[in-house]
Amino acid sequence: MLVLSSPSGAGKTTLTRTLLEQENIDYPGKLALSVSATTRAKRPSEIEGIHYFFKTKRQFEVMRDSGELLEWAEVHGNFYGTPREPVEKALAEGRDVLFDIDWQGTRQLLDKMRDDVVTVFVLPPSAQELKSRLVRRAEDSDAVIAQRLRNAAEEFQHWNEYDYILVNRDLDKSFARLRAILIAERLKRVKMPNLNVFVDKLLTELKGLTP
Amino acid sequence: MLVLSSPSGAGKTTLTRTLLEQENIDYPGKLALSVSATTRAKRPSEIEGIHYFFKTKRQFEVMRDSGELLEWAEVHGNFYGTPREPVEKALAEGRDVLFDIDWQGTRQLLDKMRDDVVTVFVLPPSAQELKSRLVRRAEDSDAVIAQRLRNAAEEFQHWNEYDYILVNRDLDKSFARLRAILIAERLKRVKMPNLNVFVDKLLTELKGLTP
Repeated sequence: MLVLSSPSGAGKTTLTRTLLEQENIDYPGKLALSVSATTRAKRPSEIEGIHYFFKTKRQFEVMRDSGELLEWAEVHGNFYGTPREPVEKALAEGRDVLFDIDWQGTRQLLDKMRDDVVTVFVLPPSAQELKSRLVRRAEDSDAVIAQRLRNAAEEFQHWNEYDYILVNRDLDKSFARLRAILIAERLKRVKMPNLNVFVDKLLTELKGLTP
Repeated sequence: MLVLSSPSGAGKTTLTRTLLEQENIDYPGKLALSVSATTRAKRPSEIEGIHYFFKTKRQFEVMRDSGELLEWAEVHGNFYGTPREPVEKALAEGRDVLFDIDWQGTRQLLDKMRDDVVTVFVLPPSAQELKSRLVRRAEDSDAVIAQRLRNAAEEFQHWNEYDYILVNRDLDKSFARLRAILIAERLKRVKMPNLNVFVDKLLTELKGLTP
């Protein structure tokens, strides 16, 4: 499980989408995206089930209270949460799962399964650039942008709870770095459970070749 | 410090050389190679001070006994060791250092500085391929090749002491993976000591932008 967190506007969503697309070209089906449920209003560019599962507050509370969420958090008045079933299904199929969640959700995931979670925090190159990206996106009202900036200050406090830090100055470079993290994590010995079978075979073959 | 280990013929030396060349194009001076001292005979293609510092057994013992070596090991009758001074100098200059050493040397490095050492074990795709590469290299006698194969069996026993495992089926792919490990390791929060200054600045700027 690979978690990306950052305040809105740091580029996290673009990075997750690009990573998912590229990985699906190179290793079809290997990486799944966990689609969050949310009570916040749908933006014009967003599609139900692709970007979020849009829920009423009542629907969300039912999901949460019946244990259907792996983690959940309230962020500037809206609920966000991860439906449990698609994640467990993907993991059982041997797929990696990508999460675009905040520090509160990350903590809950880490509490539940520390050894299987890799976390990345995305930082903007500057506060001014963060604000410019929110304004350029032109999907939120001024009041929402102001709230997102105030919220960013809180999210930033938690950068030091993450394994990796990406300062997103340049999207191409940040994407290459994010891919490197995914590639490297897959090469960790502890994440290659069938390797001992391969090495045992190698040793047996080697004995056959040695006089 | 990035350590690569493997038996001769798995491709470790080619991988370290390629990584060093490519890194020096992308980030001049960022990565240094630790050149080992050895008492084994120089191969025709090898250059003193580039591939090894070639020493007599007596010279090596003097270096070892006066604490000039960071680690040392005896492998099929020859001594190998890492001169301490060039490594400490490179680290003090903020450079990363690449090591091409065996499991015995790796253990000594880990004992001394666990938190600063990342270890990679390179496996050949098969025992037959390992033998073919040693034969193709045509630099060792049949007796030496036989000894290297016997030694490989011992080296392989230690694969599970390493952080990352590379199965070297294809040199280009393995090289890309090795680079991913290096890139990812540099993005680890604990390896970016000045990041808290950057985040503090970001937070101060952010407060200035928030109504």
